[in-house]
Amino acid sequence: MGAVKTKRMPRAVREQQMLDAAVRTFGRRGYMAASMDEIAELAGVSKPLVYLYLNSKDDLFTACIRREAAALVAAIRSAISTDLPADRQLWDGLRAFFVHTAEHPDAWSVLHLQARTHGERFAREVAAMREEIVAFVTGLIVAAARAAHRDPDLPEREVAGLAEALVGAAESLADWANATEGVTAREAVTTLMNFAWSGLSNLMAGNRTWSAPE
Amino acid sequence: MGAVKTKRMPRAVREQQMLDAAVRTFGRRGYMAASMDEIAELAGVSKPLVYLYLNSKDDLFTACIRREAAALVAAIRSAISTDLPADRQLWDGLRAFFVHTAEHPDAWSVLHLQARTHGERFAREVAAMREEIVAFVTGLIVAAARAAHRDPDLPEREVAGLAEALVGAAESLADWANATEGVTAREAVTTLMNFAWSGLSNLMAGNRTWSAPE
Repeated sequence: MGAVKTKRMPRAVREQQMLDAAVRTFGRRGYMAASMDEIAELAGVSKPLVYLYLNSKDDLFTACIRREAAALVAAIRSAISTDLPADRQLWDGLRAFFVHTAEHPDAWSVLHLQARTHGERFAREVAAMREEIVAFVTGLIVAAARAAHRDPDLPEREVAGLAEALVGAAESLADWANATEGVTAREAVTTLMNFAWSGLSNLMAGNRTWSAPE
Repeated sequence: MGAVKTKRMPRAVREQQMLDAAVRTFGRRGYMAASMDEIAELAGVSKPLVYLYLNSKDDLFTACIRREAAALVAAIRSAISTDLPADRQLWDGLRAFFVHTAEHPDAWSVLHLQARTHGERFAREVAAMREEIVAFVTGLIVAAARAAHRDPDLPEREVAGLAEALVGAAESLADWANATEGVTAREAVTTLMNFAWSGLSNLMAGNRTWSAPE
């Protein structure tokens, strides 16, 4: 009876359960140590069914990367109201990033540690997501500078550098927050904003606050 | 005659030539595409000699990572005078980081892209270097805050977060600077300092400049 019920579950639902189990296993054990047996057991299905649906460990891992990259980008985008000021959008987006990575530590481990550690094919998948996020942040910094009528001529290349710095700092902080007991998403985003905000604001105002010592 | 001369070259010198060729090849082609034939030819030695000295492609790659990690850490440390104020040490160290990664783009590619993309063993090698740098930066931020008699009680965990943010931003900017034509080390470090310095200074002074919107 139970078996019949199980068989009737739509393929799409089953695949999501397999991906849930796979993200958890890859994120916790690492790509190499994760076994298809464990993933199948955690998903409550047979191993042949995992292979039937997802083909191979490589393809399963790729499917995990794609699903989790899309989920992270969607979480950031959905937190942002485009009718709010750009600097507020930037804050809402950063907060959404830290909340999402804190709530889905296995997914973040897959995206930021595992995917980059196990070959160029997987690394390319996450590089595409990162480029999308950097482009999005670049646009927000430009919009924030323009909306404030501050420095409409902030050089494009400088903005690109700022976006890289901000994204790099956020990635590093998310790793650290997830690896450090008791650090919340709110603390992580507050640390980053305290670190970055006054510098960003100054730059948007056209002030270079800092000059090299002689 | 030439052959005799070549044979007399000390092993240590030859190994360094092989590592020079390997770093260049791994950095430009990527770990997978790099061939031992090409490395031997570039080093001006036979392929069997490369295997005799460095054992395998994996061991050669590990030797590259270790040498380049040590060189990067040494470049940062040697740029710093411990009798100068800590904030000046931080700037000198950051500048040395960007100068070194700009002057050795293949080495930076090996450390920050290749080593992390090709397996846990290599990733662990660079993780150790990164931890050393984060610990060093953490110490400088604490010292800078103390020396300025600003906020001796800056919470340890917040400093650790700041060091992670700063190192993550620097790594990301170094990748970007090397991938973007015409960006100099000076521009990269100035972008980072403009981005980060006022926030860091405010935090060291015990001011949280930024507060979350309601």
